[in-house]
Amino acid sequence: MGPWLSPEDLESVRRKVPMLYIDALPVRVDDAGEVEAVGLLLRVTEAGTMSRALVSGRVLFHETVRQALARHLEKDLGPMALPRLPLSPVPYAVGEYFPTPGSPFYDPRQHAVSLAYVVPVVGDCRPSHDTLELTWLTPAEALLPEILADMSEGHASLLRRAMAHLGRLY
Amino acid sequence: MGPWLSPEDLESVRRKVPMLYIDALPVRVDDAGEVEAVGLLLRVTEAGTMSRALVSGRVLFHETVRQALARHLEKDLGPMALPRLPLSPVPYAVGEYFPTPGSPFYDPRQHAVSLAYVVPVVGDCRPSHDTLELTWLTPAEALLPEILADMSEGHASLLRRAMAHLGRLY
Amino acid sequence: MGPWLSPEDLESVRRKVPMLYIDALPVRVDDAGEVEAVGLLLRVTEAGTMSRALVSGRVLFHETVRQALARHLEKDLGPMALPRLPLSPVPYAVGEYFPTPGSPFYDPRQHAVSLAYVVPVVGDCRPSHDTLELTWLTPAEALLPEILADMSEGHASLLRRAMAHLGRLY
Amino acid sequence: MGPWLSPEDLESVRRKVPMLYIDALPVRVDDAGEVEAVGLLLRVTEAGTMSRALVSGRVLFHETVRQALARHLEKDLGPMALPRLPLSPVPYAVGEYFPTPGSPFYDPRQHAVSLAYVVPVVGDCRPSHDTLELTWLTPAEALLPEILADMSEGHASLLRRAMAHLGRLY
Repeated sequence: MGPWLSPEDLESVRRKVPMLYIDALPVRVDDAGEVEAVGLLLRVTEAGTMSRALVSGRVLFHETVRQALARHLEKDLGPMALPRLPLSPVPYAVGEYFPTPGSPFYDPRQHAVSLAYVVPVVGDCRPSHDTLELTWLTPAEALLPEILADMSEGHASLLRRAMAHLGRLY
Repeated sequence: MGPWLSPEDLESVRRKVPMLYIDALPVRVDDAGEVEAVGLLLRVTEAGTMSRALVSGRVLFHETVRQALARHLEKDLGPMALPRLPLSPVPYAVGEYFPTPGSPFYDPRQHAVSLAYVVPVVGDCRPSHDTLELTWLTPAEALLPEILADMSEGHASLLRRAMAHLGRLY
Repeated sequence: MGPWLSPEDLESVRRKVPMLYIDALPVRVDDAGEVEAVGLLLRVTEAGTMSRALVSGRVLFHETVRQALARHLEKDLGPMALPRLPLSPVPYAVGEYFPTPGSPFYDPRQHAVSLAYVVPVVGDCRPSHDTLELTWLTPAEALLPEILADMSEGHASLLRRAMAHLGRLY
Repeated sequence: MGPWLSPEDLESVRRKVPMLYIDALPVRVDDAGEVEAVGLLLRVTEAGTMSRALVSGRVLFHETVRQALARHLEKDLGPMALPRLPLSPVPYAVGEYFPTPGSPFYDPRQHAVSLAYVVPVVGDCRPSHDTLELTWLTPAEALLPEILADMSEGHASLLRRAMAHLGRLY
């Protein structure tokens, strides 16, 4: 899966080219394909505050987008989550993050471009140690202002766009 | 699910407004979301020749698009096919059929507009009596000229567009 | 463009099959493809209240979806609006309306399925007599609660989903 | 638009992370939005053979996907091409290229992920010096085996997927 990058290497690359990311919104669906619940990760940020997030991470050298999705879903939801990876590589949204303060989607570390997917999971989700909790919310609950306020601006937008894509934004 | 329409009623409506249809391409996918096989129905046409087709049918009065998908999949693949209905109501393709000879997509009975979906099935498919067979083909086999030649022009186009949508048209 | 339907014919058909509609959100875009303004029709409803709406109408027998889009845009925006019709027939959203009170998208007249498109217009828009006004709003203004409250539930949802599709729902 | 990268820097980065690209298929459309012609670049490859290609290039640090599209279209089609950049940042296809011989999409230089768009151009296209010619072909001509054979496997696939996306792959 490509060369190991030292933190210094990665830091250097991040100042030279856009970094490719994936974002995934885990969902539970019923037999009719209707989304019953969306899963949000609840983390403690470096600043010590609580934060909700989608599953998110970098695509590695030599890794396909689908492999990156599978790897990050396993890392955050555990090995028994049984995600149904997307049939098509076309994302429902593209997120663009810039290290420029004032950007609509701001990432102080880097310029990142993220391909976003909705991923049904049918197994048992066991978030790993650095994630406090995985919270399942109904689509209506997930769109409440107090929930969106716990997310970064970029992830809040991706969540709302996911609900729009699924026909569940009223 | 709406009023019963006599054959005469339906015939009359078909000369007045476009009829709404769904088309579904059943697929088998592996754990990574890659399509391993596509399912084509093999029928004997009224003219006595063999014909391959997608699952296809009318949306009834008071029926949602997803309910129509579920009903036609069950009718053609049996009650144990366990289809994974699409998360989003947005189709991968829209087919427009006209009763005018010479139309790219010709349907002598009616003007029809069809919403097309790719639907993974994970259960046991048992086509019912009026369908001779359900044939599973690899994506490469399904795109062979001799297979496409057994399909109506409209369904051959929908199959190729499905493979394009899935990133499997080279 | 197909047979003339008397009001009685149409009324009768509306109780038998789903009716196919198009919805179009007119937008002004800048040279970079960014949406600068969205156009909402301001009408007086039958009940005498003000209502905002997308361009919307039925697809006629023998008419393509694109011809229906062109016809309804011309009817509502006048002949000089110069719409840029969509390259792909795949809509950004599918709306399903049912005549059952309590449906998320309610239409007392009929069961309707609508294909929704975002359509840039570059010409001069002159709404016809039965439309009071065409209002151009910025994307942020269009999403204000007081604007959405002037729309039917279905059109408010289609507007928000359009903004999500365009990457402008934050 | 970000730091200048020396050829050595770029070479080094290319062995560490996936590189983000855009691909654009220029098209001429009629008033109804139907594609009349697709534009293919005709180049002499380093090996001295003729090659047809889409407009293609890297997304630079600090550059949006749309800015990259505009820059590469201007570089290859000249400053008067007047492209209509896409309203939505969601591509019609995602291409993944690997430096591993035998990959379906092979790029000996790098691991690249490309977001592909169809871009109508309405102005005067004047390809610059290193491009021999811009050829306009009808959709049917562009899909002829002898035309596709002049393209890399990746671009031939993107062209066919574009035609599928536009409903023009029969």
